[in-house]
Amino acid sequence: MAAAAAARSQEHEEAVTCVDFWCNEFGMRARIALREKGVPFAFVEEDLRVRRRSDLVRRMNPVHRSVPILIHGGRPVCGSLNIVEYVGEVWSGGQEQEGTRRLLPADPLERARARFWADFVDREVYGAQTRFFTSRGEAKAAAMADLLGHLRRLEAVLGDRAFFGGDGFGFLDVALVPFSAMFHGYERHGGVDMAAECPALVRWVARCAERESVRGVLPSGHDMYEIHMEFYNIE
Amino acid sequence: MAAAAAARSQEHEEAVTCVDFWCNEFGMRARIALREKGVPFAFVEEDLRVRRRSDLVRRMNPVHRSVPILIHGGRPVCGSLNIVEYVGEVWSGGQEQEGTRRLLPADPLERARARFWADFVDREVYGAQTRFFTSRGEAKAAAMADLLGHLRRLEAVLGDRAFFGGDGFGFLDVALVPFSAMFHGYERHGGVDMAAECPALVRWVARCAERESVRGVLPSGHDMYEIHMEFYNIE
Repeated sequence: MAAAAAARSQEHEEAVTCVDFWCNEFGMRARIALREKGVPFAFVEEDLRVRRRSDLVRRMNPVHRSVPILIHGGRPVCGSLNIVEYVGEVWSGGQEQEGTRRLLPADPLERARARFWADFVDREVYGAQTRFFTSRGEAKAAAMADLLGHLRRLEAVLGDRAFFGGDGFGFLDVALVPFSAMFHGYERHGGVDMAAECPALVRWVARCAERESVRGVLPSGHDMYEIHMEFYNIE
Repeated sequence: MAAAAAARSQEHEEAVTCVDFWCNEFGMRARIALREKGVPFAFVEEDLRVRRRSDLVRRMNPVHRSVPILIHGGRPVCGSLNIVEYVGEVWSGGQEQEGTRRLLPADPLERARARFWADFVDREVYGAQTRFFTSRGEAKAAAMADLLGHLRRLEAVLGDRAFFGGDGFGFLDVALVPFSAMFHGYERHGGVDMAAECPALVRWVARCAERESVRGVLPSGHDMYEIHMEFYNIE
C-alpha cells in the first residue's frame, strides 16, 4: 500500500502537462521539443479565442497569463524558448547524436548563435508577420517585404546544412519550424510563392515535416490560415 | 620566432573585447559578467549619442547594429543575456561556489526561473522605465506605478535571500543590477523614495555594490540620470 502510494506520488511529481492552444506558433515549440525527447505529456487546451484566461493559466503564469506553460511535477516553466531549453536540459534521451542531446549545440559559441537567431525569430519574424496580417495597402506590402527579408536571412544562416542544428534537428529548428505552418497564409494573403521566394527554407520545412515530432504538432496550412483570419478579424 | 608567433596568434584567438557605451544598462551586464569571471577584456566604446553606428558594430552585429557585442577570438556574441550565458559557460573560474559557477543555477527549474525573470526585466522593467521617462502627466504617473509594481514583484522573487542567485551573485543579479543605477533617476524625475518603496531591493543593491564587478561597472546615479535626460531630450 505504502509503496503504491509512493509510486503514485512519484508519478504525480513527474507528471508533465503542456498548456497551449493548437495553433499557437510559440506553444508548438514546447510540444515539438517534448515529442522530440520522447516525453509523454498531457495537452491541456487553452482556447485563445476566449478572452478570459483559465484559472490554471492565471495560477501557473500569473505574470503574463500567457501560454505555452509547461507544468512539470506541479511546477510551471513559462516562455516558449525557456521551455525548449528546459526540456533539452532535463530529458537527454530520444536523440542519438551527442551534440544535439540538449537540443542546443555543445559549443558555447554555436549555442549563443542559436539563441541569437531564435530571438530574431521572436522579434523580427513574428513582428513582421503580425504587421503583415494586421495592416493594409502599402504597410502590408512593406511588412511582407520585411518578412521575406528576415526569412532569407535565416536561409543564409542555414546555408547548405540539413538543419539549423547542423546534421541534427535542434533548438533553432524547433524555434522556427512552427512558423512554416503560416507559409500557406503568406501565399493566400500576400500572393507570394514561398517556394520561389525562399527555396532553401521550403526544402528545410519538408525535411522537418518528415519528423514525427513536427508532423504530430503542426496544423495544416489551411487550418492555420483560417483561424488566424478569425483572430485578426479578416474576411 | 615561430613559437612567439604562435603565442601571439593564440593570444589573438582568445582576445576578448566588449563593445558598449558606459551608461547602457544592457551592456553593463556583459561587463559585470566578465569581471565576475575574472576575464580580462578590452572595452571599446560606442558612443550611442552619435546616430551612425561604427564600422565595427555594423560588421559584428549586422542584424541589429546594437551594443553590447562581445568579441571573443574575433567572433561576435550579441544580445546582453546571451552574452552573460556565454561568459558563464566559457569561463568557469572566479567564483568559489559550484552552484553559481556558470552564473545560472545548476538546477534546470531554477535556471528556467532565472531566465524567465531576466526576460521580465527586459520586457516589463525596461518597458515601464522607458515609458516613465518619455511620457508626461497621467501616463508618466501610470508608468511609474507599473515600474514600482514590477520591482516589487522582483522583491518577492528575491524573498529573504541575499541574492537572486541564492547565497551567490548569479545570472538574474547580473541582469537586474544595472537598472539600480537609474534608481536615482526615478527619485529625481518621479519624486519617489526608492528606499521606502522597495526597501528589500535597495538593500540588495547595497550588497551588490560591495562587489568589485558591480562597483567597477555601474556609473553614479547622477551621471546616469544626466545622460538619460540628454537621450530623452528632457531638461
